[in-house]
Order: sequence, then structure tokens, then C-alpha cells
Amino acid sequence: MNIDDLAARLRAFARERDWEQFHAPKNLAMALAVEAAELMEHFQWLSERQSGELSPDVKRQVGAELADVFIYTVRLADRLGVELGPEVEAKIRANAAKYPVEKSRGSAKKYSELP
Amino acid sequence: MNIDDLAARLRAFARERDWEQFHAPKNLAMALAVEAAELMEHFQWLSERQSGELSPDVKRQVGAELADVFIYTVRLADRLGVELGPEVEAKIRANAAKYPVEKSRGSAKKYSELP
Amino acid sequence: MNIDDLAARLRAFARERDWEQFHAPKNLAMALAVEAAELMEHFQWLSERQSGELSPDVKRQVGAELADVFIYTVRLADRLGVELGPEVEAKIRANAAKYPVEKSRGSAKKYSELP
Amino acid sequence: MNIDDLAARLRAFARERDWEQFHAPKNLAMALAVEAAELMEHFQWLSERQSGELSPDVKRQVGAELADVFIYTVRLADRLGVELGPEVEAKIRANAAKYPVEKSRGSAKKYSELP
Repeated sequence: MNIDDLAARLRAFARERDWEQFHAPKNLAMALAVEAAELMEHFQWLSERQSGELSPDVKRQVGAELADVFIYTVRLADRLGVELGPEVEAKIRANAAKYPVEKSRGSAKKYSELP
Repeated sequence: MNIDDLAARLRAFARERDWEQFHAPKNLAMALAVEAAELMEHFQWLSERQSGELSPDVKRQVGAELADVFIYTVRLADRLGVELGPEVEAKIRANAAKYPVEKSRGSAKKYSELP
Repeated sequence: MNIDDLAARLRAFARERDWEQFHAPKNLAMALAVEAAELMEHFQWLSERQSGELSPDVKRQVGAELADVFIYTVRLADRLGVELGPEVEAKIRANAAKYPVEKSRGSAKKYSELP
Repeated sequence: MNIDDLAARLRAFARERDWEQFHAPKNLAMALAVEAAELMEHFQWLSERQSGELSPDVKRQVGAELADVFIYTVRLADRLGVELGPEVEAKIRANAAKYPVEKSRGSAKKYSELP
């Protein structure tokens, strides 16, 4: 899967349907948050352990929700002119600096609360 | 950016910090929804038009939030054994079937409410 | 706490600051979802058990987030002309019908999947 | 509507169905965020203006979602031993201090960015 190709296909999909008028970043950010919540809904009453042992049927539904989240993320980035590749690299570097292995090992604390 | 490589790097990042205990799909789905909301927060008081004309500073912040969403999406898919490529393809095909060009042009209606 | 009084105070708070221009229902619904996510963020890496044993400090923070959610809920209902009292009563009745005690006891299944 | 009475009714509703095992604060916070997103979904493709002019049918659906949000907020507060009345009062006082009328009039800026 190539992100730039996907962004171009999603752009064409919207343009063909004259949906660009609805795809303001504000609206796409809402749609992304709604899809993330639909994904989360599958897990709300499961224990953490159960959430790692989904039935094939639920796994299929969750996979489809993940695709929705992925699609809106790529579409919103494209609409804003944000390049996901460099942003992801920068974020991973920042996380590595905020969470050094020796300080954060086995801890779920936020970086601002690490010793 | 290669999704499989990214998933492997995120897996190693978590393993090095002994964070796999926290990365139940339930928890990752929550973290993803939280990041999607942090992204959305930037847009809540902007008009749709303003949301398409971000200042460089806000655009930088939004780009970083998009990276967080992207990273948790890839990490959750990896944790669940969901392959994002085929899921995204299946979703685009399904959307094309649910929203035929001639019926959905210029309309923000949900497929179930299309004529 | 009287909901109508609270709604009137929030209305005055917004009017004094000339914030009614920002308080479209769309925007208030976004703000509510953002606050709900900020509330949830406190719980994302906690186990279910830990989430019931918060430290006084975290409990204080969670209480403040709950207040934000409550305030936006009342403000949005007021802005839309929705009366929360009757809506809540109707919802409780509907839930009682959808989840009869004998069918739903000990089950986290959605009503549509109950036997 | 009395919040304490409502909390007691929701507690009984859960106890009768043996649902207390599912109602960890973590899970209730997820359910609340999911309901807030379902509420928001109604507004995602509407303009701000359209969001203030809902049809009776959509208004009814939105009212039902608001009730869900309200119910989970009261249930979660009860489960955590948080008193909503004092929390809401404290929050309004804090907001009044963070957003003085003369500084915030007509501005959607966050308090930390006010002049």
C-alpha cells in the first residue's frame, strides 16, 4: 500500500461525487473521531484479555473499522497538505527522546511524570 | 513509508520498554480515540473555511496529532493481526458500491438514506 | 443542582462573552466529545480494577473532566431546545424494555444479540 | 430531575442485571466517549448553521443521544464517588477566572493564549 496513491484515489473518489464541499478538515476530523469511537465500541465491555482474543466475526468488523480510521487519516492529511511519512518519523524520534528505555521500562506513566 | 516496517518498529519500541503488558487492543483503541479527539480539538471553534487555512504553527501541531493517530492505527492493527492493505481495499470497494456516483453526487446523506 | 438554572447560567456566561457565535450545536458536540476523551485519557493505561481505585489527585482531575462533560451536555441540550429530564426518562424506559432482567442478567451483549 | 435519585435508579438498574462487573470506571468512560461520538455523528456533515436547524426527526435522535451521554456521566460520577453539583460549581468559577469577560469577549482563544 502506497500512501500517496491511496490519497490520490480518495481525492478522486470525493471529486467524482462532488463531496469536496463536505470535506473541510474540520468535518474530516469529526468523521475520523467518530470512526475511532466505532472501533472502540467493540472493546468497551471486554476485558483487556478478551480484547486480544476476538472471534473471527468480531475481528472482521474491527478490521473494517480500522480501515475507516486509516482512510480518514490519509484523506485528512492529504486535504491539509501534511506528509504522513516525515510526521511519523518525527513522532517516533520524539517518543524515543521522551521515553528513554531505562526510565520508562514497565511504566505506563506519562513522560512528564517519569522520574 | 512501509506499513509492515513501521509495525515492526513500533512492536520493537514497545517490547524494549516492556509495554506489551499495556498494549491490549482495548487500551490501544482507547489511546487511538484519545488522539483522534486531540486532533479534533484544534478544529472545534474554527469555521469550516478557517479549518482549511491553518497557520503554519497550527498545521505543525495538527500534523503531529495525525502522526499519533496513524501510529496507533498501525500498532493496533498489528496487535490484532489485521492487515491494513486488504482491509482498506475492501472498504474502498464497499464504499464505491454503497455510494454510486450518480446517486450520491453532491449529497452528504448516509447510503441507507440515499434515494 | 437544577438543570434549568444551570442552563440559564451557562447561557448568560456565553452571552456576556459574545460566544454565542461559536456555540453552534455542531461545535458544542465536538467540544463535548473532546471533553469525554480527556476524561477517558485518565483510564487508558489503567486496569479495570485500578480504574476503581483512583488516588485522590487523579480523582480530583477526573471530577473536573466530568464537570466539563456535564456542562457541555446541558449547554448543548439548551442550545437545541432538548429537555433532558423527559429524554432521560424515555431512555431509561427504552433500556428497561431492551434489556429485560431475565434475558440480560450477567451479560454484556447488545440487546440486538440477546437470545 | 434530581441527580442523586437518578444515580440511585441507574445503580439499581445495573445491580438487577448483575452488570456491576462490567461497570468499571474505565469501561463507563469508554461508553460515555462512544455515546458522545454517536451524538456528534449527526453533525459531522452539517454546516454550523444547519446544526442549529435540525428537523424534528433528527432532533429526536439527537435528544436520545444526549440522554445516553447524560446517563453515563451520572453513572460514572456515582461509580467514582464524585459529586457532580460541587464539581460543576467549581468548574464554572474556574472558567470565569480563566476567561474574564473583558479579555475573552468575542474570542475563541484558549485561556492560555489570551492577551
